[in-house]
Amino acid sequence: MKSLVLERKDELLLRDFPDIDRQEQVLGPRDVRIKLHTVGICGSDVHYYTHGRIGPFVVQEPMILGHEASGTVIELGAQVTTLRVGDRVCMEPGIPDPNSKAARLGMYNIDPAVRFWATPPIHGILRPTCVHPEAFTYRLPDNVSFAEAAMVEPLAVGVHAATKARIRPGDIGLVLGAGPIGLVTALSALAGGCARVYVTDLAPKKLEIAESLSPAITGVNVACDDIVARIKADTDGWGADVVFEATGSPRAAAGVFEPLAPGGCVVMIGGQPDPISYDAGAAMVREARVENIFRYAHVFPRCVAMLASGAIDVKPLITRTFAFDDSVHAFEVAASAPPADVKMQIELPQ
Amino acid sequence: MKSLVLERKDELLLRDFPDIDRQEQVLGPRDVRIKLHTVGICGSDVHYYTHGRIGPFVVQEPMILGHEASGTVIELGAQVTTLRVGDRVCMEPGIPDPNSKAARLGMYNIDPAVRFWATPPIHGILRPTCVHPEAFTYRLPDNVSFAEAAMVEPLAVGVHAATKARIRPGDIGLVLGAGPIGLVTALSALAGGCARVYVTDLAPKKLEIAESLSPAITGVNVACDDIVARIKADTDGWGADVVFEATGSPRAAAGVFEPLAPGGCVVMIGGQPDPISYDAGAAMVREARVENIFRYAHVFPRCVAMLASGAIDVKPLITRTFAFDDSVHAFEVAASAPPADVKMQIELPQ
Amino acid sequence: MKSLVLERKDELLLRDFPDIDRQEQVLGPRDVRIKLHTVGICGSDVHYYTHGRIGPFVVQEPMILGHEASGTVIELGAQVTTLRVGDRVCMEPGIPDPNSKAARLGMYNIDPAVRFWATPPIHGILRPTCVHPEAFTYRLPDNVSFAEAAMVEPLAVGVHAATKARIRPGDIGLVLGAGPIGLVTALSALAGGCARVYVTDLAPKKLEIAESLSPAITGVNVACDDIVARIKADTDGWGADVVFEATGSPRAAAGVFEPLAPGGCVVMIGGQPDPISYDAGAAMVREARVENIFRYAHVFPRCVAMLASGAIDVKPLITRTFAFDDSVHAFEVAASAPPADVKMQIELPQ
Amino acid sequence: MKSLVLERKDELLLRDFPDIDRQEQVLGPRDVRIKLHTVGICGSDVHYYTHGRIGPFVVQEPMILGHEASGTVIELGAQVTTLRVGDRVCMEPGIPDPNSKAARLGMYNIDPAVRFWATPPIHGILRPTCVHPEAFTYRLPDNVSFAEAAMVEPLAVGVHAATKARIRPGDIGLVLGAGPIGLVTALSALAGGCARVYVTDLAPKKLEIAESLSPAITGVNVACDDIVARIKADTDGWGADVVFEATGSPRAAAGVFEPLAPGGCVVMIGGQPDPISYDAGAAMVREARVENIFRYAHVFPRCVAMLASGAIDVKPLITRTFAFDDSVHAFEVAASAPPADVKMQIELPQ
Repeated sequence: MKSLVLERKDELLLRDFPDIDRQEQVLGPRDVRIKLHTVGICGSDVHYYTHGRIGPFVVQEPMILGHEASGTVIELGAQVTTLRVGDRVCMEPGIPDPNSKAARLGMYNIDPAVRFWATPPIHGILRPTCVHPEAFTYRLPDNVSFAEAAMVEPLAVGVHAATKARIRPGDIGLVLGAGPIGLVTALSALAGGCARVYVTDLAPKKLEIAESLSPAITGVNVACDDIVARIKADTDGWGADVVFEATGSPRAAAGVFEPLAPGGCVVMIGGQPDPISYDAGAAMVREARVENIFRYAHVFPRCVAMLASGAIDVKPLITRTFAFDDSVHAFEVAASAPPADVKMQIELPQ
Repeated sequence: MKSLVLERKDELLLRDFPDIDRQEQVLGPRDVRIKLHTVGICGSDVHYYTHGRIGPFVVQEPMILGHEASGTVIELGAQVTTLRVGDRVCMEPGIPDPNSKAARLGMYNIDPAVRFWATPPIHGILRPTCVHPEAFTYRLPDNVSFAEAAMVEPLAVGVHAATKARIRPGDIGLVLGAGPIGLVTALSALAGGCARVYVTDLAPKKLEIAESLSPAITGVNVACDDIVARIKADTDGWGADVVFEATGSPRAAAGVFEPLAPGGCVVMIGGQPDPISYDAGAAMVREARVENIFRYAHVFPRCVAMLASGAIDVKPLITRTFAFDDSVHAFEVAASAPPADVKMQIELPQ
Repeated sequence: MKSLVLERKDELLLRDFPDIDRQEQVLGPRDVRIKLHTVGICGSDVHYYTHGRIGPFVVQEPMILGHEASGTVIELGAQVTTLRVGDRVCMEPGIPDPNSKAARLGMYNIDPAVRFWATPPIHGILRPTCVHPEAFTYRLPDNVSFAEAAMVEPLAVGVHAATKARIRPGDIGLVLGAGPIGLVTALSALAGGCARVYVTDLAPKKLEIAESLSPAITGVNVACDDIVARIKADTDGWGADVVFEATGSPRAAAGVFEPLAPGGCVVMIGGQPDPISYDAGAAMVREARVENIFRYAHVFPRCVAMLASGAIDVKPLITRTFAFDDSVHAFEVAASAPPADVKMQIELPQ
Repeated sequence: MKSLVLERKDELLLRDFPDIDRQEQVLGPRDVRIKLHTVGICGSDVHYYTHGRIGPFVVQEPMILGHEASGTVIELGAQVTTLRVGDRVCMEPGIPDPNSKAARLGMYNIDPAVRFWATPPIHGILRPTCVHPEAFTYRLPDNVSFAEAAMVEPLAVGVHAATKARIRPGDIGLVLGAGPIGLVTALSALAGGCARVYVTDLAPKKLEIAESLSPAITGVNVACDDIVARIKADTDGWGADVVFEATGSPRAAAGVFEPLAPGGCVVMIGGQPDPISYDAGAAMVREARVENIFRYAHVFPRCVAMLASGAIDVKPLITRTFAFDDSVHAFEVAASAPPADVKMQIELPQ
């Protein structure tokens, strides 16, 4: 069984990986074995490929990539009750210690003991099969495709952000950044109650894609337009009720409060390696609430439900699909960052 | 200037009403004068017509009906800053004392001193013009018609209910009752984040209308189907995250907890003249939260924004329109309650 | 090793119980073995004794009673990291399935699979030792006695109620019922932010005890005084911000909204075997929020912290202590319900 | 009638001020006239005296100082219903436009049109009488003295901070800064539900005062002790549930997340003239919520209730009292910032 292995920075190989095969021979009583079908390529996968690390997480041993995945259940642990062989599923890539204090409190995503696919030293799932806990494996309705299901992982970031924002129906949203996370956040904000969402970026092509997703999305190119002036003009001077920071750019993050309405909420999504500038005065006169989020919790089944009902459509975001045999090439393409591609996916042989 | 006057129970007259003309000659510094364009007929208007009272509110003097309204600003008070002559607007029918304790706390809708159109002894607005505070008058964008704008008042009940429910994106909603309020609640629940909304009723025609509003709405006829069993089957036994009681029927209200998920929320919308039965045991094992709502607060501009952006479409609910001269006939039709009609409106001469 | 065994309704025996000894020989890797020190007598223990059942829970086999407990850790499972032999501890009596959906969401108390001490068919802990999960065992600071620690379980109900109420500092609270749960709720409401708490009852002695707990507690005897009038008079007509129903009496529960302030919260604590009367009209005009609670979650360590810091003092509630050898007598006394006794406890030999 | 007038930076005069006398001759229908009794000296008063400005607010004309006040009602406007002549009262110094959008939403403190005493160009109340709206004047119970009542204004900042934090009973709090605002915040955090509050400062005397206020307050001198290590040690590595930044020091503000628990809340109280450093990474891994507050809203009556019930005792904070005739001297003393004085007050002749 071949896996897509990041041997070290800049070196990817499709090859046998006996260790993982051995490790996965054990199927716990509440685990299921899954045949992988579709795996999306995430910016973090590409970053490990091109840089060998993300912050404190360093690739020191060969590691299988991939964490946005869908597949089919092929074997059940002895105590599994909610899934059956043949179920089409998607999987949450982080597995917490259910007895940790954070997990018991319902915040399993911030349990320091969480084991997350394709985050060293945990292997990802660009491989034929994997073993996963029933509790973090979600059955798909017939009308959700494997490709859409492999989008649930990035979508979950947006839905978690929209949940933490506690959007009230009819809010005006502003998403800073039209990358993949910015786009799923915009869709989530609309599905979560926003009447209208503004999305900013510097790349015209990305803004074009953003606006194509919904008539309620307005792209604003901050290279030439003043987003604060625009928001104020469109809201009688009031501001955006929710601002989502999804660029990871310190400069964008420094300006989150200016377009914000009194009593509004800022959600910090984009990772920031270094401390950023915080305009405490602007935050205070608005009594801003700031929510800082880390991945997601409890939203996978919600995402599946929204894909099934049509509340969110992620299909326009899936811009290219590669065969598993072409995985290395797919990553080379992804690493070259063509602006017209939002999400590339890899299909495994069935 | 003729007005539609409820002289007493069962007697409507389109006639001059000098008192209101005199009273409205005064335009306060923060008031605007509005030429009425479209007025919707609400169940409460009809109920005053057919019964002469609603609970403690009794029609003791001739009273002008109507409180769901849109129109055009024709004159400005001296200190008005946010509106201009010619602005197309809709109006919130309840005017609180802004210095009351409830109003200061942001709950102006439950200020006992609120003056509400067409609630004795306050006159409604089925008349050519009215004077209204700038603060409760909302400008319409070009793409929101007068007819849609006159729907904002009933829609506001649904949006307020959806706001109080604190829907999280992807929730499963259940609306008991497919009358006008049930339908706007279903639309609001979807726009406010629900992935899917079930709507119950006993009338097949009403359920048909409900399902026509969105593919994410599922009608369930509780005359023949078991809603609890249906919800449980569709949610792996978990239940609906939010249940909206919009029937006003004691029998329906008695069953709000059975279909509810653990940790879920019930919103009581439908008025109940008498105490109802409350299944405290079923509420406790779920740790249910119950929100009781009264009209709405702060949602008119949100409704306008959602109509403008397409987040909510109320046009299919407007099933018949009458000329102002046919107002009395319109009420006779409305009082006969034809099941295929959701909302009837009256257009005033311009 | 003798245990206090409820053989059947009305028959208690202090005797060997070989089954439990065998069962408890197994110490899981994340369990600890605890030598019991103090066990409080709860109304539910007494009710099983005098009635043989509580609702659907029927004593069909001999069952050990007791679930309010403190003790000393005497043995550690292989993976235990946060406790040591010799630690003085108190224990949460309900153990959920950590992988259930409710538990993952942080609502482990409403996981239907929860196993709760002294709730048939699960044995309680009126016995020398028990095995318990590390995750639900809480270390005591030096200044919290075993007797106080055995009060954490009932106190947790009050603290959970106060938490769910989302008290704002300076709220006025009203607790219906001055039984043990009413009293811990009053203390919790004060510690949780209430400026003043009114407590109602029909028994003068209970009200006297309530008032002795804090100068900020006011007892009101509803046999002779009108609590609604009193609350209104003391709050300029506004009402109580939070009303806690802790009587379990249908009649008291029917009146929870009348003394409630606009926008206020009702917390339903007292169990109600049958549906109760709900004044929907009174709830609506206030836009009341109703929280229904079931036991507690996440509050044991909070209770310990509040006992340690002096924020809550439960010592005045511990009115009588029996030796373990006198357990049967203790239950006979408790079953006779002397009004001056709030909490009786049993001390095991050390 | 003499007033304490800041003529310009560094120049205070007790003198007649005919303008204010003229202006205050008008008593609106919902206003009351108040004879001032006690006025506290706030750091902002002193700052205007020593610097002539605070940020954008510049003293350009002679301005009367003082905004922490209590007094007696001596005249009623025609429509006043809730107060009587002779009522002892305290007054909220900021008066919003009740029809502004922020005020209608219940956030009157962030209404840009708010008029706030002793903030240029609005005069303060170090003068014999003032006219004030009934709606922002609060009656005192007999057991709250004028001196305590003049402490309600600074206390309100702490209570507002504690309210926004949404403290859950038993939380561990950390207040950065033991100045007057830090101290009232510590008291408010305890009264609002914290089991224990740590307070940091660099001045041993201030920490000594902090610890004298309650056995549940622990002072930590960050000149020599590591607050993060201390908090972690005392909470099994978990952290403080709520961190209040009350120093206004950029350096302290930069470290708010390190001692914070997962899922915890930071409340930014201290004003910061310039952008500060924000450790986004530390905020994210905890999913921190940050609340930024501006003065207070809706808490004056809550503060009065807590003083009356004994939930909060501010008397130890009142360290010196001056006669009105000695006002200039009082400000000279205050400007020299003796560390042992927390709050100085001025008493007007009665």
